[in-house]
Amino acid sequence: STRLGETMDALGNAASAARRARTMLLLVWTLLNAVSGLKADDGGMVEELVTEKEAEESHRQDSVNLLTFISLLTLTILTIWLFKHRRVRFLHETGLAMIYGLLVGVILRYGIPATSYHNKTPPSCSLKEGPSSTLLLNISGKFFEYTLKGEINFREIHNVEQNDMLRKVTFDPEVFFNILLPPIIFHAGYSLKKRHFFRNLGSIITYAFLGTAVSCFVIGNLMYGVVKLMRAVGQLTEKFYYTDCLFFGAIISATDPVTVLAIFNELHADGDLYALLFGESVMNDAVAIVLSSSIVAYQPAGANTHMFDASAFFKSVGIFLGIFSGSFVMGAATGVVTALVTKFTKLHCFPLLETALFFLMSWSTFLLAEACGFTGVVAVLFCGITQAHYTSNNLSEESTKRTKQLFEVLHFLAENFIFSYMGLALFTFQKHIFSPIFIIGAFVAIFIGRALNIYPLSFLLNLGRRDKIRGNFQHMMMFAGLRGAMAFALAIRDTATSARQMMFTTTLLIVFFTVWVFGGGTTPMLSWLHIRVGVDPDQDLDGNQDEGQSKTKQESAWLFRLWYTFDHNYLKPILTHSGPPLTSTLPSYCGPLASCLTSPRAYENHEQLRDPDTDLIHNDADLTFTFGDTAITANGASTSRADATGGLGWSTNGKRSGSTSEEALERELDSREQELLSRGTRLVFPMEDHI
Amino acid sequence: STRLGETMDALGNAASAARRARTMLLLVWTLLNAVSGLKADDGGMVEELVTEKEAEESHRQDSVNLLTFISLLTLTILTIWLFKHRRVRFLHETGLAMIYGLLVGVILRYGIPATSYHNKTPPSCSLKEGPSSTLLLNISGKFFEYTLKGEINFREIHNVEQNDMLRKVTFDPEVFFNILLPPIIFHAGYSLKKRHFFRNLGSIITYAFLGTAVSCFVIGNLMYGVVKLMRAVGQLTEKFYYTDCLFFGAIISATDPVTVLAIFNELHADGDLYALLFGESVMNDAVAIVLSSSIVAYQPAGANTHMFDASAFFKSVGIFLGIFSGSFVMGAATGVVTALVTKFTKLHCFPLLETALFFLMSWSTFLLAEACGFTGVVAVLFCGITQAHYTSNNLSEESTKRTKQLFEVLHFLAENFIFSYMGLALFTFQKHIFSPIFIIGAFVAIFIGRALNIYPLSFLLNLGRRDKIRGNFQHMMMFAGLRGAMAFALAIRDTATSARQMMFTTTLLIVFFTVWVFGGGTTPMLSWLHIRVGVDPDQDLDGNQDEGQSKTKQESAWLFRLWYTFDHNYLKPILTHSGPPLTSTLPSYCGPLASCLTSPRAYENHEQLRDPDTDLIHNDADLTFTFGDTAITANGASTSRADATGGLGWSTNGKRSGSTSEEALERELDSREQELLSRGTRLVFPMEDHI
Repeated sequence: STRLGETMDALGNAASAARRARTMLLLVWTLLNAVSGLKADDGGMVEELVTEKEAEESHRQDSVNLLTFISLLTLTILTIWLFKHRRVRFLHETGLAMIYGLLVGVILRYGIPATSYHNKTPPSCSLKEGPSSTLLLNISGKFFEYTLKGEINFREIHNVEQNDMLRKVTFDPEVFFNILLPPIIFHAGYSLKKRHFFRNLGSIITYAFLGTAVSCFVIGNLMYGVVKLMRAVGQLTEKFYYTDCLFFGAIISATDPVTVLAIFNELHADGDLYALLFGESVMNDAVAIVLSSSIVAYQPAGANTHMFDASAFFKSVGIFLGIFSGSFVMGAATGVVTALVTKFTKLHCFPLLETALFFLMSWSTFLLAEACGFTGVVAVLFCGITQAHYTSNNLSEESTKRTKQLFEVLHFLAENFIFSYMGLALFTFQKHIFSPIFIIGAFVAIFIGRALNIYPLSFLLNLGRRDKIRGNFQHMMMFAGLRGAMAFALAIRDTATSARQMMFTTTLLIVFFTVWVFGGGTTPMLSWLHIRVGVDPDQDLDGNQDEGQSKTKQESAWLFRLWYTFDHNYLKPILTHSGPPLTSTLPSYCGPLASCLTSPRAYENHEQLRDPDTDLIHNDADLTFTFGDTAITANGASTSRADATGGLGWSTNGKRSGSTSEEALERELDSREQELLSRGTRLVFPMEDHI
Repeated sequence: STRLGETMDALGNAASAARRARTMLLLVWTLLNAVSGLKADDGGMVEELVTEKEAEESHRQDSVNLLTFISLLTLTILTIWLFKHRRVRFLHETGLAMIYGLLVGVILRYGIPATSYHNKTPPSCSLKEGPSSTLLLNISGKFFEYTLKGEINFREIHNVEQNDMLRKVTFDPEVFFNILLPPIIFHAGYSLKKRHFFRNLGSIITYAFLGTAVSCFVIGNLMYGVVKLMRAVGQLTEKFYYTDCLFFGAIISATDPVTVLAIFNELHADGDLYALLFGESVMNDAVAIVLSSSIVAYQPAGANTHMFDASAFFKSVGIFLGIFSGSFVMGAATGVVTALVTKFTKLHCFPLLETALFFLMSWSTFLLAEACGFTGVVAVLFCGITQAHYTSNNLSEESTKRTKQLFEVLHFLAENFIFSYMGLALFTFQKHIFSPIFIIGAFVAIFIGRALNIYPLSFLLNLGRRDKIRGNFQHMMMFAGLRGAMAFALAIRDTATSARQMMFTTTLLIVFFTVWVFGGGTTPMLSWLHIRVGVDPDQDLDGNQDEGQSKTKQESAWLFRLWYTFDHNYLKPILTHSGPPLTSTLPSYCGPLASCLTSPRAYENHEQLRDPDTDLIHNDADLTFTFGDTAITANGASTSRADATGGLGWSTNGKRSGSTSEEALERELDSREQELLSRGTRLVFPMEDHI
């Protein structure tokens, strides 16, 4: 009863905090209006002062807007705490952020009188030339510089004036792409659970590329049918091309099962399913963003626009491949540069400098890619993966923690900001077009699109996988096709035409529905589908052995082994302090180069491990050794082998004798992941690896 | 020789990294120009596309600009590391950032052909009305919305066009105020070494308020003389009022001894001198910012502008007091709210949520103050102090570390960004006015202004201080009058008139000179002035006792004791988990309220400490107890008193028997500071407290 009392207390506190915050918000708003009202009365001032005051007013308004969002986020945090405290799982923090956003949106829309602080219509002037980014205004010899904000519909001019307040809460859509998405995507890459990710890499790539393409085309074609239907029943008079439908298919194919994954994490659900879902959603964000820009770039030649044109189509495919691979290379390159810098300097003595450098280099990937015309968000994703794989081996323990925490906070804030903005946008966005047929059509289309993505691809993948993706996993993946931040950001990026506005409204509703309904239904769904929860990440693999299930087959074992050997023997030693010394892996004629590139620490590690088995790792990845290796626990600094008999017992298991080398690779992957934590030595600590 | 080899290697690496970065930068720049050149050729496109391309181009340009700064910061970090590695102290990171900024500025100015990517002059249109923030442009029935950027001098229009690239690197000055300064100032407040700060609070406030005012008026008047001289010799034809001179006095009075303090920290220089310098520079930033805005607000009535007008003067004083106290209250209030929220929720179980909440609340102070017309930067300073004093007692150990590190990184990045921007601005800012007389006059004036601030005030303070501010300390304070980020940010905020442009140029040069010369001369100066270094922060007080010097006299002992008692007995228990239970400090009729507000942990702490001496702390701050308290070390979790005889021995020292209660207060302060680290228990760990 004490706990209940505490909870009730806390609930009361949070509720009163919510009330306080809302009251404060309204107060500020009212105050501001009063102040602006006063200012508007000062008619006869000199021009300069008016401009200054307007600038001041606009700054103040910006502050209030940001303050609104910060209050929203604060409220969300407090309520999240309450939910976590009470172990409420039916509503995730993102869903909550949306609800608070909706509430504030309603208040802004209906609770505050729609007065504008300058009640005059803005002055207008005419030109014959086309619009340019800069315009000079000549007022009796004085020149003022204006910058283009965008085209505005004539009938909206008055509307805009009336809803000035609502309009002010609107952020530049590019803010989402340039400020809020990068930390989210980077964090996703940086916190990949490498072990399960690499184990399922083939499937993840299949779902992400092929699956997203399938989903995009299925949804696009279905929506084209819906658009034709709408035109037939007279619900649509504006332009809505086939490419628009495909564009919608692309943006709505970006899944974001953040809610589902949070619950997976909390319940310690199956690691492979987690990896499949997480990997797919991370990679398909990248695919969707590039796909949508390729579709926009699809410009058939001649008068017959928006029809199929083979050359334009192949150009689009080329653009897709070019942008994707360019962004990938850029992200990986920055990661590699960071790894080299952190390896060859002794920066790890100064965690602050190291963290700052890491942050700046990761950010520069984004800017570099954007500056070169690639996609920053995609580059940032691969940068994150590279940083996690190489650079984090070179960081000091302190910096590893710092960078992880820094990006965790940034990710958390950005994600909740986007979701509360979504809630707000439903009521404050000015150009919604609610078209019931389109919305219902879209819901049906994304369902069919998801189904035609998951089930057929799973069937195909299962032909190659020894460890089949079972039916309940497939249903769970189908269920976890939530839409989130990326779909929203892509949809809000361009809302100029009515087709795009309709898409935006529909996307918003799809996000709401999937996050609330599917997000909330995750826990029941998990138990209904009999997906095992409470898996101890450390016991995961051992558990599998006991179950006698083979989860260790690589789909592309040959390719994977090639890459693994190359990475382990050359890339890791060149880029990090870990791995075998290059002198032992490179041919002897590369001697001087090898000894120059090899970190002194690598020799130490090597010495420590020197024994008859060591060479087997490099050549044939002997099972006994690697199993013994991972079984070493953190009890004391001893490097003695533990449980060698267990290892032998396992290797004598005849059933899996054919897959020994793949399993050994995996063990290695596993230990490499944890090596990150014990850096330098080969001691493996049994730690939890939450994202 | 191995170490030398390593260092040389690292030097080579850093140098080649620098070359690479610079080459890359130029490459990107050239590439960009090529691409833009290509785009400019596509003459006959539809309007929409042109606008879209221009927006894209502008976005790309923004990316390149940010990338420039990030490359600069990366370079700076690598070089800082090299300097720290080699223990170079003659150049601080901020000085280094400026040098790199200068280099890039030179490259941008002279290395890149001054072509614009759109070679046409922007279209211009005429209106009779005054400028408004929004302008509509009607092009054959289509309306485009433009927003006001600012007034532009007619003769600059072509100039602007020619140096488009340089102009693009220019940030909106408000970025400094709204994005870069807040983390710097918050960090300053949050990392105050409370022990020494509170011990010297009276002196710090005197230097900050009176000193800054003296400095401002002295410099203002001297500069007015310089302006008159310039007019007499025909060097000045434009307007330059007395208020402009005072404004210059205000902005240049903001000291920023970041270089000096970094060296103090590294060498463990005297704690009191550190506190005086740090406290003064932090507080006088706040004073200078409010002072400058009060001077701008000085608008005498009638035609006789810019002459002395008593009512306008008092109005300005009123504005100063109003803005300062308003910002103070706002900052403290947000801190208090955060403390209450963190106390009454069990948020500390979720460090991520706690850190995010802390960050958001601290940021909201800034926005709230700005929205209400107060000064966000000042509010943020006091918020930081309040957060450090109260909230950090409630945070989990994890969050205490996280928040500290988060703000440390933000502070580091923001500070280095500003300093490298300063370097860049010398060559890329378009409206420099180099006036030799004004510049020389300003150098003389700031010297005199600093002298008339430090020496007379120190004399006055020494009348009241038992622990005198000695001559060498005064000289060091005189020497440490560096100018930095705040002076720059205030100067760049408004560069519309030629007077302001002249001030900006001069400020820039003063910052360069003081940071490089005085910053670099700190180490020699310290030894020349015989200021003790290598002081162990923990041994500091004990050392003082042995020296027989009394450093413990509070200047305003009475006021201070009153505040201390109130804070310790009421504020701390209400706002945090530490301090005595309210049930024992509040009158008995407040019983229910007191027990409701008291944290369960406070009882625990209280129980743990219950003994005959405890009450003495609250009533008369018994010396023996407090000394014994601070002497407890971290060896095991024992709460037994250590060194009681030492404590008694000390209290029997007749010489200081009169100041026992103040000294006891200080001990308390001391232990409160360290309590932050051991939270909940009264065990005091001998930890280093670097800022």
